[in-house]
Amino acid sequence: MKAKIFVTLKKGVLDPQGKAIHASLTHLGIGGVEDVRVGKFMELTLKETGRDEARMRLEEACRRLLANTVIEDYRIEIEG
Amino acid sequence: MKAKIFVTLKKGVLDPQGKAIHASLTHLGIGGVEDVRVGKFMELTLKETGRDEARMRLEEACRRLLANTVIEDYRIEIEG
Repeated sequence: MKAKIFVTLKKGVLDPQGKAIHASLTHLGIGGVEDVRVGKFMELTLKETGRDEARMRLEEACRRLLANTVIEDYRIEIEG
Repeated sequence: MKAKIFVTLKKGVLDPQGKAIHASLTHLGIGGVEDVRVGKFMELTLKETGRDEARMRLEEACRRLLANTVIEDYRIEIEG
């Protein structure tokens, strides 16, 4: 079973990495970009369990390890 | 117009960050995970242009700045 976790900065939280990428794109002459926000993306391979069980475990993983819930949001997608 | 870019390590490239997350999950008692691969995730806000034009620019951005194509793959999703 595969799962994807997306961790993104909450709206309103400053994203210096995104700002740096935006500036670099401009320097490279790649225009048409108004804003860039950078996040983390994890692909997990899970042992076969129920989807509810898997989601519960991944929620716990996000809260305790993968996301800083003060400034970050997370989204879990379970596939197959 | 919004776009998402996913940058992931190519298959077979070692992912020490993923291994560290896997080990930490085990230490926290969160089991059932077989493998973790970590990638980057970018959300871009684009000025309104054609989708083809936007995709061309983002392909260039990935090749020249956002991904190291020797060890990384990228995927572009254009929305709306």
